[in-house]
Amino acid sequence: MTNTSLLQPKRTIAELKELRALTGDENGAQRVAFTETWATARAWVRTKLAELPVEVETDQAGNVWATLRGTSEKELWIGGHIDSVPNGGWLDGCLNVLAGLEIMRRIAAEGTPPITIRLVDWADEEGARFGRSLFGSSAVSGYMDPEELAELKDRNGITLREATAAYGIDLLKAREAGQQLRNAAAYLELHIEQGPVLESMGLPLGVVIGTYGVERNAITFIGQAAHAGSTPMDKRRDAFAAAAKLGLEIRDIAKRNGGVCTVGSCITKPGIVTAVVGECTITLDQRHMNANGLANMLREAQEASQRFAAEEKCEVAWKQIWQIVPIPFNLDLIELCDQSIRETAGQVHRLPSGPLHDAAEICRAGVPTIMMFVQSLRGISHNKIEDTSEEHIELSVIAFDKLASKAIDWIMAK
Amino acid sequence: MTNTSLLQPKRTIAELKELRALTGDENGAQRVAFTETWATARAWVRTKLAELPVEVETDQAGNVWATLRGTSEKELWIGGHIDSVPNGGWLDGCLNVLAGLEIMRRIAAEGTPPITIRLVDWADEEGARFGRSLFGSSAVSGYMDPEELAELKDRNGITLREATAAYGIDLLKAREAGQQLRNAAAYLELHIEQGPVLESMGLPLGVVIGTYGVERNAITFIGQAAHAGSTPMDKRRDAFAAAAKLGLEIRDIAKRNGGVCTVGSCITKPGIVTAVVGECTITLDQRHMNANGLANMLREAQEASQRFAAEEKCEVAWKQIWQIVPIPFNLDLIELCDQSIRETAGQVHRLPSGPLHDAAEICRAGVPTIMMFVQSLRGISHNKIEDTSEEHIELSVIAFDKLASKAIDWIMAK
Repeated sequence: MTNTSLLQPKRTIAELKELRALTGDENGAQRVAFTETWATARAWVRTKLAELPVEVETDQAGNVWATLRGTSEKELWIGGHIDSVPNGGWLDGCLNVLAGLEIMRRIAAEGTPPITIRLVDWADEEGARFGRSLFGSSAVSGYMDPEELAELKDRNGITLREATAAYGIDLLKAREAGQQLRNAAAYLELHIEQGPVLESMGLPLGVVIGTYGVERNAITFIGQAAHAGSTPMDKRRDAFAAAAKLGLEIRDIAKRNGGVCTVGSCITKPGIVTAVVGECTITLDQRHMNANGLANMLREAQEASQRFAAEEKCEVAWKQIWQIVPIPFNLDLIELCDQSIRETAGQVHRLPSGPLHDAAEICRAGVPTIMMFVQSLRGISHNKIEDTSEEHIELSVIAFDKLASKAIDWIMAK
Repeated sequence: MTNTSLLQPKRTIAELKELRALTGDENGAQRVAFTETWATARAWVRTKLAELPVEVETDQAGNVWATLRGTSEKELWIGGHIDSVPNGGWLDGCLNVLAGLEIMRRIAAEGTPPITIRLVDWADEEGARFGRSLFGSSAVSGYMDPEELAELKDRNGITLREATAAYGIDLLKAREAGQQLRNAAAYLELHIEQGPVLESMGLPLGVVIGTYGVERNAITFIGQAAHAGSTPMDKRRDAFAAAAKLGLEIRDIAKRNGGVCTVGSCITKPGIVTAVVGECTITLDQRHMNANGLANMLREAQEASQRFAAEEKCEVAWKQIWQIVPIPFNLDLIELCDQSIRETAGQVHRLPSGPLHDAAEICRAGVPTIMMFVQSLRGISHNKIEDTSEEHIELSVIAFDKLASKAIDWIMAK
């Protein structure tokens, strides 16, 4: 049984505020990966780890590992990321690291654990500077392509390769960090929801069943630009009308299939007040927890786009931007997470994660993985007004600690 | 009766081609007002006028007048504009000037006309360089505000005042051109349709009943930007969805009221693939021949925008860009134009003009006004592929000449 008196969730809140004061400003958190403020945050975490009987090392991808040796070499991983977006919130990423730190303290205080416990701070989860997220975890999972990343540039023309080299990383060797996987038996990640679901249900905590698969496309309708005054309504080939129809239809497609679909951008050409739109490009982001559901949503949107193009006498062309398969988390760990939340907060909700997380990379590397969400206020993140009530943060640390204990027992029993 | 042997419509076609060779390039017509190419075109027209017994003068707004004195001081005006948009077509504007020239030749060959005939080449109808169309005709009508225009700048930072001064115009005195109105008894203008209506009906010529009234607005829906992955469909405040609904609804509003409505531009913010649209601004251009019809269309669009904003949990704000009242042409002249077309081509169609023309300014100055349209191929204008069949151009010159004769008789009989 967990000795709850050794776990001090209020300390986690105090440390979150300490980190905010150290690495934030009036616009929010500024811990962008591969910057001085990020390095400051990591040095600060090291001072905390120095009080524990752990070995601290940095791998070839810049991930920092704190290892509490146990009787068995089997490893339970608890992971997060201390980096943030520019002008970010006070919880995204660092909550995981600091809750994990608190749990390490509790476990260490109880003596040598039966298995090895490792806290990992992933390098550059956000990808805010170079547009490529999940840097460190994808190096471990093997889904990173270093050649492709090498020449990514920030807005000042500095390459990702140069920026990482300044922090001791040889990009072309980053995937050697995959050696870390050798003894990994389970991966746990606590994160703020960054969405409105738990708040709308009045629940503090949720079990994440996996990360959505994503199909991301740009769709261009081509009609005919024409004079807004001289072209009768029935003579038009209006590309905006076709795009508008699709923009509304994708909502039914999402609801019917149980996923989410979003038109995030709409660009009109010639885009002037006096001309019927001759060309309209919209982006479509579709997400679903189930591969068949995702494929159905994509197919239905494609069919609808053809139908609307025909109705409006337009042509339509699709261009893929990006895609990823759904990544379902481990069913046993889902059950353990569910139990931990019930024991802590009484009620629980299971939900998929829309945003990707390092957990998705570790899961597809074959490590049994689970995430726990704590409620976000107003569903807002990546913004200085990102917030979660302190009461819920405390509950999250308690429930996440219970999950760690259950996961240790589960690994031992395997 | 008109002596048709004196009218040579094929000469008009030859002169249109001569002008194209002189002032066009591989991208189309380049006679932008207040440029050297425009001056070249005007000098070329003067060489043609020099062969006629006319007085040529330029007024305070840069309009060029060729006057054939008649027995009466009452004046019939035939007007057009030799200026073009950049990369324009071979007919927009100059057809009117050259058809008018041919009709002046025919009338002059018949001896002193019973009334005075004046051909006018309006200055800067297109407004292509400074974004303000109908320069010369609005100076005559008095609807120009010289103070407002003085500081308009082209893309090189040259002001409208500087550009017009280089062609001998004192902008602050331009409205003195209104003196021209003194003896004006009727105004005739022949123009290509710039739309697809006559072509779709298989008719060469049409009577223009007036120019549309226009209501032009920018409409902004404000919702809430939110993560495309973490925000369930039923928790969204999607500004693009509200705009898309309005973009489709305005088509029903147009059809129901017998006008035209166009969404020409759509701008989304933050406008990224991974975010629900938090703010969406569309432009709405509404046109109707009837003031009540126009007002109804505006009111219905406003009501619809409120309804859709409420449905999508958004706010909506309207900002007026521009408006003008409908300008109906003279009923007697409509009848004479109709007769002229029937006598020439057998069939006729009456239609409003979507685009504005100098005729609208002269009409609202109180001069009985009429326009005749000749069919445009594919409805395309302001483009080098703008075209009309030569057979139809010939018919247009013949019918327009008949209209001039009937208008002279009509003025005499008043």
